[in-house]
Amino acid sequence: MSNIELDYLRYLGANLSLDLTRGKPCPDQLALSRGLEDMIQGDYQSRDGIDTRNYGGLLGIPEARELGARLLDLDPAQVLAGGNSSLALMYQFLAFRKTQWAHSETAPKFICLVPGYDRHFSVCEHLGIAMINVALTPEGPDLSMVEALVEKDPSIRGVWCVPKHSNPTGHVYTPETVQRLAKLPLLTQSDFVLMWDNAYAVHDLDEDVPPLESLMAHAEAAGTADHVAIFGSTSKITLAGAGLGFCGLSPSVLEAFQRYLEPQMIGFDKVNQLRHARFLDDEHKLKALMDAHRKILRPKFDLVDKKLKPLSAQSLAAWSQPLGGYFVSLDLKAASARQVVQLAGAAGVKLTPAGATFPYGDDPEDKNIRIAPSFPDMMDLGQALDVLVCCVHKASHDAASQSH
Amino acid sequence: MSNIELDYLRYLGANLSLDLTRGKPCPDQLALSRGLEDMIQGDYQSRDGIDTRNYGGLLGIPEARELGARLLDLDPAQVLAGGNSSLALMYQFLAFRKTQWAHSETAPKFICLVPGYDRHFSVCEHLGIAMINVALTPEGPDLSMVEALVEKDPSIRGVWCVPKHSNPTGHVYTPETVQRLAKLPLLTQSDFVLMWDNAYAVHDLDEDVPPLESLMAHAEAAGTADHVAIFGSTSKITLAGAGLGFCGLSPSVLEAFQRYLEPQMIGFDKVNQLRHARFLDDEHKLKALMDAHRKILRPKFDLVDKKLKPLSAQSLAAWSQPLGGYFVSLDLKAASARQVVQLAGAAGVKLTPAGATFPYGDDPEDKNIRIAPSFPDMMDLGQALDVLVCCVHKASHDAASQSH
Repeated sequence: MSNIELDYLRYLGANLSLDLTRGKPCPDQLALSRGLEDMIQGDYQSRDGIDTRNYGGLLGIPEARELGARLLDLDPAQVLAGGNSSLALMYQFLAFRKTQWAHSETAPKFICLVPGYDRHFSVCEHLGIAMINVALTPEGPDLSMVEALVEKDPSIRGVWCVPKHSNPTGHVYTPETVQRLAKLPLLTQSDFVLMWDNAYAVHDLDEDVPPLESLMAHAEAAGTADHVAIFGSTSKITLAGAGLGFCGLSPSVLEAFQRYLEPQMIGFDKVNQLRHARFLDDEHKLKALMDAHRKILRPKFDLVDKKLKPLSAQSLAAWSQPLGGYFVSLDLKAASARQVVQLAGAAGVKLTPAGATFPYGDDPEDKNIRIAPSFPDMMDLGQALDVLVCCVHKASHDAASQSH
Repeated sequence: MSNIELDYLRYLGANLSLDLTRGKPCPDQLALSRGLEDMIQGDYQSRDGIDTRNYGGLLGIPEARELGARLLDLDPAQVLAGGNSSLALMYQFLAFRKTQWAHSETAPKFICLVPGYDRHFSVCEHLGIAMINVALTPEGPDLSMVEALVEKDPSIRGVWCVPKHSNPTGHVYTPETVQRLAKLPLLTQSDFVLMWDNAYAVHDLDEDVPPLESLMAHAEAAGTADHVAIFGSTSKITLAGAGLGFCGLSPSVLEAFQRYLEPQMIGFDKVNQLRHARFLDDEHKLKALMDAHRKILRPKFDLVDKKLKPLSAQSLAAWSQPLGGYFVSLDLKAASARQVVQLAGAAGVKLTPAGATFPYGDDPEDKNIRIAPSFPDMMDLGQALDVLVCCVHKASHDAASQSH
């Protein structure tokens, strides 16, 4: 029996229960926002006298809209401050757009950049929107491909983008990419939309990450602002499940989206908006908070890189070295990702299902795995990565044995 | 010039700005839940060890589900504890049901009891569901009419009910009505649903209001539990815009609804669920809180009754004397409600638009006005009611002059 087999058997017997599946903040990160609970102190009035406890105010209180504007590089008048879920806003926004497609004859399609974020794909599936894969490059989407597709096929209604520290590759779109994307709706029918999920807008792992250009500014210059929908949240700034989601739209689209939302709800939780706006009421507090997150996360990402190193020497894998965000994208040899995820699962290490980073859960090459190192502590993370590396070796070894 | 005209002219010149439109709690009521903010104290763990700050847990934390179960007379396993809006849950639930009607050929319809709650009607309109009026009687819906309609028309997919302290009439459904309603789905096609918005479950204005029978219990007995959807919230218990919404469903429907929601959101705000579950962790705290609400609201409802009294003597109006809830339903002479609302508006007293208590905003007799006395203080409320009474007199006087 090889050393690899012996190692794997040892892990099988170790009763591990480790989880690298989702980009969840760890308890130390969540503790950084303990101050949120002290922000009310009996004073529930927003700056302009709104009683945040009562009904109403679907666009959010002004100071929460300003917070969203600062995060997403927008004007506060363009921002809806919502509830605890930017995913819910994205779903509602696409459901709203879909009502405008009702009389179209062909089934709507979206371009999805791969590897990408599984929950974007689920939203499309749930809304009956077909998905077309386009490769994400280090500069952003493969734009020649995107442009060729949208010119050819009028049933393509939009594209999902995570422009900064993309999930899972970590890529940051270059200024040229953002500028060219802003002009993309000009090539298409009128209801095309750029779904711009800027989830990691301020989530840098290094001190000097090049800034992302403002899509809205470029879209305004190009006359395409009505085709841009910008999303973000404090889920990975304050509390993952109890933060604020934001949505940024042109004035006319924001007004139409508000009318769409009105029959569905009276308003979002404005007390939590007030907590957040007070907790992050200037740029320095936000910067200090994100610095503290970085100090917790940076060593975890370094550990991933260090533990995977041996795989590179043997050309068994390549992976991203992100400058921010929550994920490492791991590419194995073709036709091995499913097997590695399965082997790791059997040894008590849960990984994001292979294929999850592609629409319909179908990675055509079966090689990409998303690693989420934020939640486990350093000890658990190291152990989980040891198991993962062992499983990659084992899969490679098994494949080699079979081909002999 | 008559005294009525002189009074009205005096109000026109008084620069009033009063609002009786919506069932908003007043600041004194909201202040009763100040303690919510002190419920966390650095301890974010739910009873069973869930970190409420992080992602996940779409059905809600166990103690919040228990709170919903106590409010709505359900088993905690039947309850989804949601975010700050039960209206959003109702919308999502009907949107979910609608996906199951996709292959139906005729347009779906709902029975709406009138006068009723305008936001229920808006949900139907938004989802493309046609509405049929059925009269609400003091015992509940006119069931002979409802039964005849659903037997005749298979495109009727459900009925909206506010079974206790109905909005706006204040009626409480009798035990016989609840029992008969539980059997209603037996008369229909399989996907019929009773939308049971028990918004005022514990919102009594008197000490001994007869309890509402449990629809779920009767539905279980009748084998119709899959056709029952029960909703409620703490919006008028704790904070109107920052409370908890709940939804109660049979096990199989709850599971299907959960799967429907999963692509739309990762979970609701569990920190706010924890605040509420701790704040209302036993029956006595809930009872004491509702007693305190009653002490604030009771005098306002008494004032409405007292101020309207002269109208009754002259047979100009009839109105409800609710045992709970947030509204008084005022019936004027036919063809006068719009005019009265307009006259009052011109004098600075905003009333819920005439017709709002009927689907499509269309009160066929133009006689019903919903009065929401909870928000203004006693002085403002008294003044607003004086204006209203004057406007009713003026409308009657104008009508009499025209017919001469």
